[in-house]
Amino acid sequence: MKGKVFLVGAGPGDPDLLTVRALRLLQTADAVLYDELVSREILKLIPATAQLHNVGKRCGKKKIQQEEINFLMIALADAGLRVIRLKSGDPLIFGRAGEEIEALRKAHVAYEIVPGVTSALGAAAAAQIPLTHRRASSAVVFMTGHRVSNNKAADWSKFAGSGATLVIYMPGDDYTAIATKLQAANLDKATPCAIISRATTEGQRTLRTTIDNLQLSPKFAAPTLLVVGEVVRFADIQPFSVVSPGTELPVPAELISAMTTDSIQEEPVA
Amino acid sequence: MKGKVFLVGAGPGDPDLLTVRALRLLQTADAVLYDELVSREILKLIPATAQLHNVGKRCGKKKIQQEEINFLMIALADAGLRVIRLKSGDPLIFGRAGEEIEALRKAHVAYEIVPGVTSALGAAAAAQIPLTHRRASSAVVFMTGHRVSNNKAADWSKFAGSGATLVIYMPGDDYTAIATKLQAANLDKATPCAIISRATTEGQRTLRTTIDNLQLSPKFAAPTLLVVGEVVRFADIQPFSVVSPGTELPVPAELISAMTTDSIQEEPVA
Repeated sequence: MKGKVFLVGAGPGDPDLLTVRALRLLQTADAVLYDELVSREILKLIPATAQLHNVGKRCGKKKIQQEEINFLMIALADAGLRVIRLKSGDPLIFGRAGEEIEALRKAHVAYEIVPGVTSALGAAAAAQIPLTHRRASSAVVFMTGHRVSNNKAADWSKFAGSGATLVIYMPGDDYTAIATKLQAANLDKATPCAIISRATTEGQRTLRTTIDNLQLSPKFAAPTLLVVGEVVRFADIQPFSVVSPGTELPVPAELISAMTTDSIQEEPVA
Repeated sequence: MKGKVFLVGAGPGDPDLLTVRALRLLQTADAVLYDELVSREILKLIPATAQLHNVGKRCGKKKIQQEEINFLMIALADAGLRVIRLKSGDPLIFGRAGEEIEALRKAHVAYEIVPGVTSALGAAAAAQIPLTHRRASSAVVFMTGHRVSNNKAADWSKFAGSGATLVIYMPGDDYTAIATKLQAANLDKATPCAIISRATTEGQRTLRTTIDNLQLSPKFAAPTLLVVGEVVRFADIQPFSVVSPGTELPVPAELISAMTTDSIQEEPVA
């Protein structure tokens, strides 16, 4: 008998932010193919009897191709296994699920998609940023910073003029390049933005700044997300949280003043 | 001792798509303030000992104001209760959580935000539409159809030119108005789109069409979502599923031909 593939969203990081269905599927999996960004705490929930395959494409030593993932997924299902394809966040947002679905259909393998809490929502909850707001933004755009070097500023300028909140997935840590691109897209340099690193995990770090001051930001551990827009004014981000993971990196003075000027809260500044 | 307010996302409808944390909070709630769109199956998970308040603003008989919700939430927390403010989808996407957070901060009430699977992700999983796709769309916009009558087409045209997938929350059932607005925003009338009604629930219905043929669509039960963009070509929507809930409404012939022409799948048409 043929097995089945479940394309499952693992949520933003915190195992408690798995859906009930995702948790149940993980606990009864025969094989799990997971991405680099899926947290260790979540992997611990998988029974020891299940096969575990790290198919993270970011994985330093060996790059695994999408075709290899498809092949493995189909082979395991053909062997009769209950296969979980575990993706951080939601599988249908920047997860290449589209390509995997096409491969599964072609191979006549049964599959099911289990949505998850996409990283932007985890990050927004962590930083307490309403992504839409009656007074500030009536739309939100999820985009990637991946091709920042491609100079595709044309696309970004469309969004910039819309007044929508922008959430940039995988912005990388070249904040100068991102800031340049945002300004080239005609976003006001005073626009508030927030970097959220490793949202909803113990290593979570948040920083609130403006496009203009983005380049002064310390580098944070991946995965990070960048939220840009007026709604960031509503964020509850303590200046104290601005440290690189593991180190007590001081916040640049310019950044502190930028943050406090901009702040809607009256928090003491260290 | 003061209580606490949890702003919790209930997900798209299926109780199994609650997060583990949301489920646990519901099961230990003293009071739950829920929106009209939260499904009955989810409300069943709340212990009988908890106070239940329907604060749905769509609720026919009596319109409850945002200020009243804020007041009730704060009063219950002040009474020492563990209060769950339960919102369909994710609280920070079109949920007015921003305003509630402001009220809670002002009243010095402790609160926490628990993200959820936003409706767009439930709908996309149900219809098997990858919201982003390497070959078709590198961004996705969540917007509302609420102000369709306001003729704010200017905003929409920004998004239309970006090539991003558009997800319209609360499009209403005036599909002619929506189609007109989308075309006014310079979207090609042949652009594929999908209506997903009551995603992830037993009453789920999906329809795939084009902007041009949107006006021919039967009316579906709320909540509905409209997905617009090339990625809809990847959808797995059976023409057979095109029925109004409860009735065996036939699909208009024009629509069937539109759907099959457009289809990437070879499904028999009734």
